[in-house]
Amino acid sequence: MGIVVQKYGGSSVATADHIKAVAERVKKARDAGSDLVVTVSAMGKQTDRLLRLAGEVSRSPAPREIDQLLSTGELQSVALLAMALNDRGVAATSLTGSQAGMKTEGRYGSGVISEIRPERLRGLLAEGQVAIVAGFQGTNSLGDVMTLGRGGSDTTAVALAAALDADRCEIYTDVDGIYTADPRIVPEARRITVISPSEMAEMAWRGAKVMHPRAVELGALYGVEIHVKSSFGGGPGTVITGGEDLERLETRETVAGIVHDLDVARVALNGIRTGPGTLSRVFTPLAERGISVDVIVESGMKDGRADVAFTVRRGDFPEAREAMEELAPALGGQAEGEEELGKVSVVGTGMLNRPGYAAKMFDTLGEAGIPIRMVSTSEIQVTCVMRAEEVDGAVRRLHESFELEERDV
Amino acid sequence: MGIVVQKYGGSSVATADHIKAVAERVKKARDAGSDLVVTVSAMGKQTDRLLRLAGEVSRSPAPREIDQLLSTGELQSVALLAMALNDRGVAATSLTGSQAGMKTEGRYGSGVISEIRPERLRGLLAEGQVAIVAGFQGTNSLGDVMTLGRGGSDTTAVALAAALDADRCEIYTDVDGIYTADPRIVPEARRITVISPSEMAEMAWRGAKVMHPRAVELGALYGVEIHVKSSFGGGPGTVITGGEDLERLETRETVAGIVHDLDVARVALNGIRTGPGTLSRVFTPLAERGISVDVIVESGMKDGRADVAFTVRRGDFPEAREAMEELAPALGGQAEGEEELGKVSVVGTGMLNRPGYAAKMFDTLGEAGIPIRMVSTSEIQVTCVMRAEEVDGAVRRLHESFELEERDV
Repeated sequence: MGIVVQKYGGSSVATADHIKAVAERVKKARDAGSDLVVTVSAMGKQTDRLLRLAGEVSRSPAPREIDQLLSTGELQSVALLAMALNDRGVAATSLTGSQAGMKTEGRYGSGVISEIRPERLRGLLAEGQVAIVAGFQGTNSLGDVMTLGRGGSDTTAVALAAALDADRCEIYTDVDGIYTADPRIVPEARRITVISPSEMAEMAWRGAKVMHPRAVELGALYGVEIHVKSSFGGGPGTVITGGEDLERLETRETVAGIVHDLDVARVALNGIRTGPGTLSRVFTPLAERGISVDVIVESGMKDGRADVAFTVRRGDFPEAREAMEELAPALGGQAEGEEELGKVSVVGTGMLNRPGYAAKMFDTLGEAGIPIRMVSTSEIQVTCVMRAEEVDGAVRRLHESFELEERDV
Repeated sequence: MGIVVQKYGGSSVATADHIKAVAERVKKARDAGSDLVVTVSAMGKQTDRLLRLAGEVSRSPAPREIDQLLSTGELQSVALLAMALNDRGVAATSLTGSQAGMKTEGRYGSGVISEIRPERLRGLLAEGQVAIVAGFQGTNSLGDVMTLGRGGSDTTAVALAAALDADRCEIYTDVDGIYTADPRIVPEARRITVISPSEMAEMAWRGAKVMHPRAVELGALYGVEIHVKSSFGGGPGTVITGGEDLERLETRETVAGIVHDLDVARVALNGIRTGPGTLSRVFTPLAERGISVDVIVESGMKDGRADVAFTVRRGDFPEAREAMEELAPALGGQAEGEEELGKVSVVGTGMLNRPGYAAKMFDTLGEAGIPIRMVSTSEIQVTCVMRAEEVDGAVRRLHESFELEERDV
């Protein structure tokens, strides 16, 4: 049998009882004969608790120390899971990111995996042990702990699967797969059985919370088959793969799903003088502040002047608007912004070279009387920015008009 | 200025406010010009919380996993203290035991420091940084975390002071020094200003809780001057040193102090046949169970039979008695035991070669009508085991008869 990597999130290991349930599930997979590597997140609200303590002792804690602090959450989880497995007669050993050979580089708080040296992991597997690896962390060339930032534990799991040439990577979460839309908004939404990595990454970037796009892209790069499943039920979940099954599906399927995101605010510079280097002057100060920009729209020039607008996360809104207010006078324009926005995206590789899908999206929203504030398109998605209060209705109408509930017959 | 190592215990870093108070104290020492290495324990009840979780997921957690789990408590403390120092404008960097070059060997849960590689520590000090080192831990040759067991953080501090050839090691605790007896029992007890390492170690082994004897002995071995001080007040505390000041004191002082311990139980084998190897048959099964034996008394043989009695910690009593009950029939004797005991010791290098001190102790207890159950003596202490309820009275009477309250004129 081959190697399987499993990842359990923080809500799956929130209490001693949860950890015991995960141990039962791991034991079952081990009994079925797979060589197992398991990676876990910190217990439930542990990370929040540690961040709160950091905020109590310091106004602006150094990122290196934050990483040192936060990495302990995963270390506790792996030790406890190894104990729970041992208690069930399953040989298991916990490893820190460092012990698992996770080498990182980049900035503290948002490290990237530069290399995995899996000798010790392979040694444990050869002994018949389950290796339990602390997610979300590695060590840099100084020997310091670095956390991997957003999506870190998913990324750990997929990277381990790639380094060990695993049969598959199983991501256990609190939902039973990826849906054609958020079932809380669209009760008819359907679980997607197979999805391509590029569609999945696009859905994740555009708002699907189940799995982090960074991990999906890493999986695509190394050809890792990812299974998204529920920690609690036993269903088949969603398989993310670029393999043959998908090719067959793609010939008849077009739109994979509708995703939405309410963490959207918009900042605009109106009436600015444009010329070579203008956009760089707009976006460099944002990059320097570490603010990610999503949708960008530049209006056509008129009398040597133009409007530039872009979206950011709501948490970054005050700083982004301040930066633009500082800049606007030098460009002869004015800054403005609004916070209560959302975006809705239609995602699917089937849209490639079929321009009719964007038109169909605009028609649907127009008929529903929903004003579109900004638009962004790529080969496999169309995204519309709108007022936050319009998002639920837009998702429902689009799910209906693209006939997603009926596709699976 | 030279290097000073400071150690703060768990109660000194129990909350964010406590950590900030420690940061103020460290800043003051730094402002005074010393190069500082600070080691801290886990926050307050953190270790207990983690052990409880371990007990919830496993009936007998593997020592390696316990170590992996418990080491996170100190990692959190060091990161938080570094943040609190940075927030006060003091350059500080936290280090895990591994990063500080702490190499260990031996058994998980009771590792011993085999080597310290202080290159990184020295580099931080050369940069003018305060180095904050996680106490109680190091890594073994496998790269696994090992905790140092009882007295681990004190031992970390003293070992660092030795490796860095520090001017002194300051142990901050919740009392303001070592006393001639427990002030809760003897209000007249006096703070000892200077004490020799051998006396201090003996007092610690015999029940003084302030500092662990293991750390005292390590300090004696490497000539580290140890200052025991209060985390909260600003007094001079007690200095543990073998230096000149002490020599002078020793010419006129005899008894350093009276210590007591209520964590004592007694197990006896009565009427056993003795011969070559009998004692080994008695104590080997205890060693195999990891049970430490303290006072041992063997009665004179009569008709080829003898009685052997020894004391253990109360937590080890059930297992020790069980082991002896299994053994007794083979030796033709009977096992018995009692739990509610205590011991009282008179400690002082001045007792060396002056047998009158043991006699004075027995006289004092006899006059007070306190029955002595067992006696143990060495060059610098006399210990009497008695019923637990007699301990307070014994300490008071002995403190009086050895005139300890009057010595410091």
